[in-house]
Amino acid sequence: MFPKNCWYVACTPDEFAEKPLGRQICGEQIAFYRDNNGKVAAVQDFCPHRGAPLSLGYIEDGQLVCGYHGLKMGRDGKTVSMPKQRVGGFPCVKSYPVEERYGFVWVWTGDASLANADDIPHLEWAVSDEWAYGGGLYHINCDYKLMIDNLMDLTHETYVHSTSIGQKEIDEAPVKTRVVDGEVVTSRFMDNVIAPPFWAANLRTKGLPDDQPVDRWQVCRFSLPSHVLIDVGVALAGHGGKDAPADKRVNSIVVDFITPETETSHWYFWGMARNFKPEDKELTDAIRTGQGGIFAEDLEMLERQQANLLLFPEYDLLKLDIDAGGVQARRMIDKLEKEEQQSRIPLESVSA
Amino acid sequence: MFPKNCWYVACTPDEFAEKPLGRQICGEQIAFYRDNNGKVAAVQDFCPHRGAPLSLGYIEDGQLVCGYHGLKMGRDGKTVSMPKQRVGGFPCVKSYPVEERYGFVWVWTGDASLANADDIPHLEWAVSDEWAYGGGLYHINCDYKLMIDNLMDLTHETYVHSTSIGQKEIDEAPVKTRVVDGEVVTSRFMDNVIAPPFWAANLRTKGLPDDQPVDRWQVCRFSLPSHVLIDVGVALAGHGGKDAPADKRVNSIVVDFITPETETSHWYFWGMARNFKPEDKELTDAIRTGQGGIFAEDLEMLERQQANLLLFPEYDLLKLDIDAGGVQARRMIDKLEKEEQQSRIPLESVSA
Amino acid sequence: MFPKNCWYVACTPDEFAEKPLGRQICGEQIAFYRDNNGKVAAVQDFCPHRGAPLSLGYIEDGQLVCGYHGLKMGRDGKTVSMPKQRVGGFPCVKSYPVEERYGFVWVWTGDASLANADDIPHLEWAVSDEWAYGGGLYHINCDYKLMIDNLMDLTHETYVHSTSIGQKEIDEAPVKTRVVDGEVVTSRFMDNVIAPPFWAANLRTKGLPDDQPVDRWQVCRFSLPSHVLIDVGVALAGHGGKDAPADKRVNSIVVDFITPETETSHWYFWGMARNFKPEDKELTDAIRTGQGGIFAEDLEMLERQQANLLLFPEYDLLKLDIDAGGVQARRMIDKLEKEEQQSRIPLESVSA
Repeated sequence: MFPKNCWYVACTPDEFAEKPLGRQICGEQIAFYRDNNGKVAAVQDFCPHRGAPLSLGYIEDGQLVCGYHGLKMGRDGKTVSMPKQRVGGFPCVKSYPVEERYGFVWVWTGDASLANADDIPHLEWAVSDEWAYGGGLYHINCDYKLMIDNLMDLTHETYVHSTSIGQKEIDEAPVKTRVVDGEVVTSRFMDNVIAPPFWAANLRTKGLPDDQPVDRWQVCRFSLPSHVLIDVGVALAGHGGKDAPADKRVNSIVVDFITPETETSHWYFWGMARNFKPEDKELTDAIRTGQGGIFAEDLEMLERQQANLLLFPEYDLLKLDIDAGGVQARRMIDKLEKEEQQSRIPLESVSA
Repeated sequence: MFPKNCWYVACTPDEFAEKPLGRQICGEQIAFYRDNNGKVAAVQDFCPHRGAPLSLGYIEDGQLVCGYHGLKMGRDGKTVSMPKQRVGGFPCVKSYPVEERYGFVWVWTGDASLANADDIPHLEWAVSDEWAYGGGLYHINCDYKLMIDNLMDLTHETYVHSTSIGQKEIDEAPVKTRVVDGEVVTSRFMDNVIAPPFWAANLRTKGLPDDQPVDRWQVCRFSLPSHVLIDVGVALAGHGGKDAPADKRVNSIVVDFITPETETSHWYFWGMARNFKPEDKELTDAIRTGQGGIFAEDLEMLERQQANLLLFPEYDLLKLDIDAGGVQARRMIDKLEKEEQQSRIPLESVSA
Repeated sequence: MFPKNCWYVACTPDEFAEKPLGRQICGEQIAFYRDNNGKVAAVQDFCPHRGAPLSLGYIEDGQLVCGYHGLKMGRDGKTVSMPKQRVGGFPCVKSYPVEERYGFVWVWTGDASLANADDIPHLEWAVSDEWAYGGGLYHINCDYKLMIDNLMDLTHETYVHSTSIGQKEIDEAPVKTRVVDGEVVTSRFMDNVIAPPFWAANLRTKGLPDDQPVDRWQVCRFSLPSHVLIDVGVALAGHGGKDAPADKRVNSIVVDFITPETETSHWYFWGMARNFKPEDKELTDAIRTGQGGIFAEDLEMLERQQANLLLFPEYDLLKLDIDAGGVQARRMIDKLEKEEQQSRIPLESVSA
């Protein structure tokens, strides 16, 4: 089960540039395409005629055409036309509120009447000229909450990413988790350490020395339904760390949109936003390639962890201090889900 | 469930020329081979000794020998011999009535006492020198009834086969479905149209112009249990269409034997019989290759439709006029199946 | 279900020379590694922190380190340490009695308090300088009892291994099965036959003629839980067969350790011990390659037999004289399993 009355990142526009995209989100089968007004549309991926996936079809004059017998589906889930047929009585399929913003398509998988695009979070790095963004998408066969745990406890970098961003000091530095303004914030500060390879490269890119001690920070922010944005960076030691002047530090935001597919699989939109050399597209590509490689190191661990948890249902997982970020995030998710379920109780049951 | 008291096309003789063929038909595991009289035999694909599939074995002196410990199985499901063993008391396995006719092997998967080879339909194109036949076999992961629907509603050609046999006029021409003499007949006539590439090529083959308007026809005939034979062709416009003189038309029969494997998979024997240039083997091969390519275009659609129907069990499919052929065919199948089930009710239940 | 209070062969030391080995044995997920004393350890393959498979980690100072967040696991299933954590209260995971002996690792998958390494059978060929051993491992998707049946009835050699060790005389010679000192012994003697290719080659290796009649023997010995050791050989005809002087015969022991993974899959450790030319490593390799090829011929048959048995649950298998070895072996296994189950009944149930 997932909270469904929320905006999830579903895809990026390039994924349906040529033909419709079929994707499962929170257990819903959805076809995404761009309509004749240039607006993204999202309808149930099911032709009411004979059940073919609409995403196997094509777009004609901004309408989704079923590739089997030519039914034309509208963005509201109502059939528009079908050759030689009167379609007024055709059953509707679901349509989903959908918004294109910040380079992503956001979909609302629950009660459409509650959808409000203002609830999509503001992402300054996605609209400001001072920032550049690059990222990618992985399909991962594990519960999306395991990915949230992963990102809210960066201790794993020491072990899973030992050759790039991991370093021994990470798991030696204490972490602190707070819930602030509806966000779970887990912070870790490592003062006076040697920059690991990934950050050493970024220091050089910015013209800073890579062989001097730095103050390193990681501030992970979880927000509902399943976004994790992480402030990361290093500053030359003793200049204030995270608050050091811009010419003494290099930093970025690790962007993680984690979208459930099924109970045991999810879509992982990962990327990095940086506010140095934003115009340098080669740098964007280089960082994307590097980050893609690093984040791929998590895949086997997460999928094997998922498989192992299914084999050992009798065990409870530990909840240590380093796990507090994930624990608090799951608590917020569970609360949201429970509220949704209660709001669905029909009136007669309540009065009884 | 499937009607089982009927003749299904099981395989072609070349499939067991070298060694026995194991194939599942209507949920029955069957081993096919040729016995010492040159007659095709079909027995349950299960060695009564230790359960090995008999089709993994070989043929010796016209007997099926289990490849594990050498049990020899007879065509009646009784063990013939086994080294150093007395086999009189060995349990029998099922044997199936089987007939080799028209280049196909036909098997009766139900009550053997009811099997009558006279019920195998007469196929004039398979025995006449004036006709040539070429075809192939596809294994498709969908309910065989979805394939019947597909073939009884050729509207899909416009969408699925747009580059070969599809044309816009197909879904603009009305269809008519009748039940005649135990056959479901769905007809569509398109007068004064341009021949699509497949038919243009056939016109040229027959020495007819390919750039003049033609009258095109498609007459789909379903018969139990799951055969669809389709009269298709084009005639130079205004000469009587389907009834035009032979030198003004080119036509053929699309042959479809659709044999259930499981509830969600089937064997699809497809082919084409033609009554022009029957002696031209190169033409036969060329048509087979072309048809194989066209019919392969249906596979993804059918398998994805099946998967989608399993995901959306709550929806009923529409039954439009274009679907009438499939609807009537399914009605005949359901009736046959119900009759079979009732005939299986034991006497005591009936009298009670 | 399997008897679990016994020693099974789990792996060979080379399998965890570089990193831990994760393997399922009798339904238990186990991580194998070598500890800081050089002793093999076996613990449940589950990190008590977040459920990652411990076998995905690495060994540091003889301790198993979880590759996700650095928990160090001890050979007793108790967490040794974890960065910045007090681990005293961490839940334990199972540990398994384990012994390295005869070039194999033996694991006890049941009640650890009953494990006694003295119960591991003595294997003279594994410790004597007069013998050489070579072997390999196959993973096979069938019930391990089907493999025991296979090895206790060598009639199948005539059919499955017809080009190497099979010969017609095998299934013409009577077999005799006895239960002796807790072993099931199935013997077959074929006097005055031509040596099949495998034995002809071995005769030449030992400088004996390969074109003269030989007396051939096969004595299969099953012992609990699932070991089959087979005395096989040929002697020049008329010199006493199995008891012929060493310079008139060539013989070896086929070694089969058959370890359940799940109900329908197992690990098959196969090999051959010989007491001629034991110092000849090239000969060892040549025999291993030949045997590996021959034993691979059984895989398809066994896996297809398993699949067929699942398709035909209504059939009982025959129990002929040639099957007596397997039947007796299964009887011993069932008895052991039943005893184990009864010994697990809690006292209150017994007194009630």
